Amino acid sequence: MSSVGQVIRCKAAVAWESGKPLSIEEVEVAPPQKDEVRIKILFTSLCHTDVYFWDAKGQNPLFPRILGHEAGGIVESVGEGVTDLEPGDHVLPIFTGECKECAHCLSEESNMCDLLRINTDRGEMLHDGKSRFSINGKPIYHFLGTSTFSEYTVVHVGQVAKINPDAPLDKVCVLSCGMSTGFGATVNVAKPKKGQSVAIFGLGAVGLAAAEGARVSGASRIIGIDLNPSRFEQAKKFGVTEFVNPKDHNKPVQEVIAEMTGGGVDRSVECTGSIQAMISAFECVHDGWGVAVLVGVPNKDDAFKTHPVNLLNERTLKGTFFGNYKPRTDIPAVVERYMNKELELDKFITHSVPFSEINKAFDLMLAGEGLRCVIRMDA
Amino acid sequence: MSSVGQVIRCKAAVAWESGKPLSIEEVEVAPPQKDEVRIKILFTSLCHTDVYFWDAKGQNPLFPRILGHEAGGIVESVGEGVTDLEPGDHVLPIFTGECKECAHCLSEESNMCDLLRINTDRGEMLHDGKSRFSINGKPIYHFLGTSTFSEYTVVHVGQVAKINPDAPLDKVCVLSCGMSTGFGATVNVAKPKKGQSVAIFGLGAVGLAAAEGARVSGASRIIGIDLNPSRFEQAKKFGVTEFVNPKDHNKPVQEVIAEMTGGGVDRSVECTGSIQAMISAFECVHDGWGVAVLVGVPNKDDAFKTHPVNLLNERTLKGTFFGNYKPRTDIPAVVERYMNKELELDKFITHSVPFSEINKAFDLMLAGEGLRCVIRMDA
Repeated sequence: MSSVGQVIRCKAAVAWESGKPLSIEEVEVAPPQKDEVRIKILFTSLCHTDVYFWDAKGQNPLFPRILGHEAGGIVESVGEGVTDLEPGDHVLPIFTGECKECAHCLSEESNMCDLLRINTDRGEMLHDGKSRFSINGKPIYHFLGTSTFSEYTVVHVGQVAKINPDAPLDKVCVLSCGMSTGFGATVNVAKPKKGQSVAIFGLGAVGLAAAEGARVSGASRIIGIDLNPSRFEQAKKFGVTEFVNPKDHNKPVQEVIAEMTGGGVDRSVECTGSIQAMISAFECVHDGWGVAVLVGVPNKDDAFKTHPVNLLNERTLKGTFFGNYKPRTDIPAVVERYMNKELELDKFITHSVPFSEINKAFDLMLAGEGLRCVIRMDA
Repeated sequence: MSSVGQVIRCKAAVAWESGKPLSIEEVEVAPPQKDEVRIKILFTSLCHTDVYFWDAKGQNPLFPRILGHEAGGIVESVGEGVTDLEPGDHVLPIFTGECKECAHCLSEESNMCDLLRINTDRGEMLHDGKSRFSINGKPIYHFLGTSTFSEYTVVHVGQVAKINPDAPLDKVCVLSCGMSTGFGATVNVAKPKKGQSVAIFGLGAVGLAAAEGARVSGASRIIGIDLNPSRFEQAKKFGVTEFVNPKDHNKPVQEVIAEMTGGGVDRSVECTGSIQAMISAFECVHDGWGVAVLVGVPNKDDAFKTHPVNLLNERTLKGTFFGNYKPRTDIPAVVERYMNKELELDKFITHSVPFSEINKAFDLMLAGEGLRCVIRMDA
């Protein structure tokens, strides 16, 4: 019997309150409304942003909520007005959207869609301001418009990338957020030329994805900067050739890097969110041509501060959001780079758990273990 | 009788001490040494940088000195090793050089030559650390390697742009510094697309040259920002379509501009050197694609400060030096843009005086009168 147009009852991991283990519950998932798609999630992975909003410190807490935004799945049904997706399509839901109509979507340079730009405070669907999730009729909030910690979810069509059906969803699911963010920061924004040097600040998953971008670009030197020396061993697998721990030096790390490289690196990518790392990442690029790219999300009271001469000496400072990828237009091609064995993803996936053990993924991330833990929905 | 290889005796305007009127003196100009060119200056113009080093506040004063760095002239003779210039060539001396061999010269992206980058503290020639100017055998310091306030001067070949001999030197002399700096900041660095909006901070000569770059690029709106409302009338001739005086508003000018433009301008160019203008110029560009370019030279204690989210929302911040032009490679083509009537220069030249009245040019600049005063050496 077709589920189209029907409420689906399925399992979801519900965050009832901040910082407490998720609880697997039976939820009702309403049919997709105008411009919406209902997706059967097959694999989802855990990203720091999920943990951050689960922990809910310094934010407006919004509970009960179904978290999750890195995932791969298959379209179950589509709502009114959806013409470019159909049941059976393989898709990645994306935490930020592309309406294809606003000034940002029409600009070649921006992916910051006016309609569907990331909104961490919204817990309902745009169409009617209501949730599609409920338990015994009581609504459960959405998260980032994706809520992938559920066997079925409803997502705005502008937040759905249709990908090659041959792509293994248990691998490419990580392109929904972190890996595309880091990889795109390097290949779309920093754009190192073959043979150039690249510094990567922060060797977590996003930083290593930025390093992967540098490796794919043919960088001659990839210098990893991290306060945790144990991260260097793993980073070598991602092409990082040298390691600098700022704690090992009694001068600013930008000076250390300038000395290592005869005046500075050609490109740098900042993936920590620490304001000091942002300043160092900018000041460590070579004058004349250096480009620094900021990825990490800072505290709201931070101020980026530098002497303007560092800019006047022909350095460039840019920030990026989701690696400058437009979710619908560009992500399918990133999946193809994986299929062509150009971009390596498997090495990012260090753990895997069944859906029933989703809280283990949280434990691993809180312990700083591994990079990505993929959660298998059918297990 | 040929002057080649001989000391030339000619007139020069000597700055004997800071802030005192220049004095026209007979000086000896030694023949050019290795990699040097002796140039007969026909026209020179006055730039703020001359006045700044003449005034010599907060710097190491270096006197007596022959100032001047915007000029046009004809090669009189060349020293050993100079192969790409010969007597009779029409040239512009440039305050910063291009050795064509260092990492910067070999980079497509930089014009900050390691050997010949601007050096305001140096008063002698690179080759032997000596001056080519003297009065009764006592050396007079050079300025920026150009010292164009002299009928003859000696310049490193790397600081000499060979230009079309048909170009009127009394006009194109202003391309030696200010006009190229502003024009290049827009066309080479901000790179507005046809139909985009551009904000110009500071409507002095450099800012108006930046506006000229926006006009030539086909900008739809050119918004001029200046604390002096009397500058708007003149700015209209340079394509400035709207004027904002920060003093007329009780909120930051970046907010005023964002309201005028539906979220921000596409490009901005800062030509004042005020740190507050730099911050406003950055924060007034549109998220997603806005590019801000810093041109003005700040005080040495200034700090550029912004919230990093302004960057993460996909704004780009860049600085430029001499409009990113490589002096020898690129300036001849800028002269051609003038010859093709694409770039207008005549409107920048608001005054002209004979060499004997060079101090009038200083008086005009100190009074804030006009844009460029061309000094006629033969008069």
